[in-house]
Amino acid sequence: MALIHDDVMDRSEVRRNRASTFRALAELATGVVHSGDPQSFGASAAILTGLLGFVLADRLFASCGFDPESVRRASHALDRMRASAIAGQYLDLLAAHRGDADEPTARRIAALKSGSYTVAEPLAIGALLATDGALVVDVLGRYGRPLGEAFQIRDDVLGTFGDPVITGKDADGDMREGKQTVLLAIAKRRADPYQRRVLDRHIGDPELSPRQAEQVRDVMAATGALDEAERLIVRLTDEAKSAIVPGAIEHDARDALIALADAATMRLS
Amino acid sequence: MALIHDDVMDRSEVRRNRASTFRALAELATGVVHSGDPQSFGASAAILTGLLGFVLADRLFASCGFDPESVRRASHALDRMRASAIAGQYLDLLAAHRGDADEPTARRIAALKSGSYTVAEPLAIGALLATDGALVVDVLGRYGRPLGEAFQIRDDVLGTFGDPVITGKDADGDMREGKQTVLLAIAKRRADPYQRRVLDRHIGDPELSPRQAEQVRDVMAATGALDEAERLIVRLTDEAKSAIVPGAIEHDARDALIALADAATMRLS
Repeated sequence: MALIHDDVMDRSEVRRNRASTFRALAELATGVVHSGDPQSFGASAAILTGLLGFVLADRLFASCGFDPESVRRASHALDRMRASAIAGQYLDLLAAHRGDADEPTARRIAALKSGSYTVAEPLAIGALLATDGALVVDVLGRYGRPLGEAFQIRDDVLGTFGDPVITGKDADGDMREGKQTVLLAIAKRRADPYQRRVLDRHIGDPELSPRQAEQVRDVMAATGALDEAERLIVRLTDEAKSAIVPGAIEHDARDALIALADAATMRLS
Repeated sequence: MALIHDDVMDRSEVRRNRASTFRALAELATGVVHSGDPQSFGASAAILTGLLGFVLADRLFASCGFDPESVRRASHALDRMRASAIAGQYLDLLAAHRGDADEPTARRIAALKSGSYTVAEPLAIGALLATDGALVVDVLGRYGRPLGEAFQIRDDVLGTFGDPVITGKDADGDMREGKQTVLLAIAKRRADPYQRRVLDRHIGDPELSPRQAEQVRDVMAATGALDEAERLIVRLTDEAKSAIVPGAIEHDARDALIALADAATMRLS
């Protein structure tokens, strides 16, 4: 659901190497729609599809088979996750339209947006379904929050430097959209005036050419922002792994969580 | 939440005599947004606001104070309500873009869209929270479904003939949007070729003038569609009231439900 609405808001036409729901519904509309604008039909139908996903997710969650008390306990984490993702998405939207976000803002967006819904809160939901033990929930929280942030910064790096065949995303999409990533915020801080002008001119340009995108990538590398982002990913991932203290988490689960931390943040090149 | 998303999809700028959330956020955007399009910021922010409403409604529902088993039982009706409203909204969108809907389709949309979320399912949610007695739930269903439909047809009539000062809506909005109402479907069935041309030419015209809107209203009245819609409202309301058989529902509740049926479907003129 979040991804479908994301594509409507970004007017993204590609998702995982295929037409996004928004784009697919707009195409469908050119067949069935006789009046009005297919784009607007596609956007509206995609909003509804996303909402239906929201409802079906609620239904799955309510009927997951755990006892009502556990479901109720875990529903707090589910709702907190969704509220955080919405807040992060709003800050992201605001930053993209303002065309600027400093590093603390970019990191806050990363933590709220993906940190919460990709790693930290799903772990909390699982933990709260399984146990009312506060120690496990606390340990998984201290593991999940930095890992979620590391995962988002990896996603940002892949969004700028990743191979679109592997990532399934438009290679220059983040730059064209003007997405205010942690990587970009670091690059701006480290940039000299000439490098800063390259970033300001090209980030958020919907007509960005492949050659201009390459210039932006060169600045990200030459400023050392790419290296700094990679070091930040390593530091946050280490922080996550060191939260998994023996005693609080069973041995097998510990191994799995450490392998997960590496898999979620590894380079794809 | 549904109303906020509704306004995004319709690009409606007025809701209850005030700027819609979509419009208000687009206006806000002209102050804070330096790049990009304020309209697109407004639409995206309104999608997020609607989703936040969705999450907060879930939170309120989960923490309503009833025991977990009752909440779980009622959550089925809550999810069915939301899925029905989404399905009805999609059929409505499709009909508006196709520019045509016959009477059975228009009635199906009315039943799914508003029938479910304004009357029938809220009653079912309340009943399922309060009791696991199948008779009460069944009786309230046979009351709520026709009443919900009658309420929607009243809404359609008010959307075309209502005083905007009382309804809080744009007086000609439904006609400009090409909303495929039950009233319009009846008018098309009863129209002679000249009257039909008036409807086809003006319904769904975003540039509809007040004089043209008046012509459409004249056709709705002259064909007898307005009278037929009023009779349909009365018949459905009577059907709802006669479902409230003594024995299944307590005396006081029965009086309140009958008063509610009248209040939800009365003329506002």
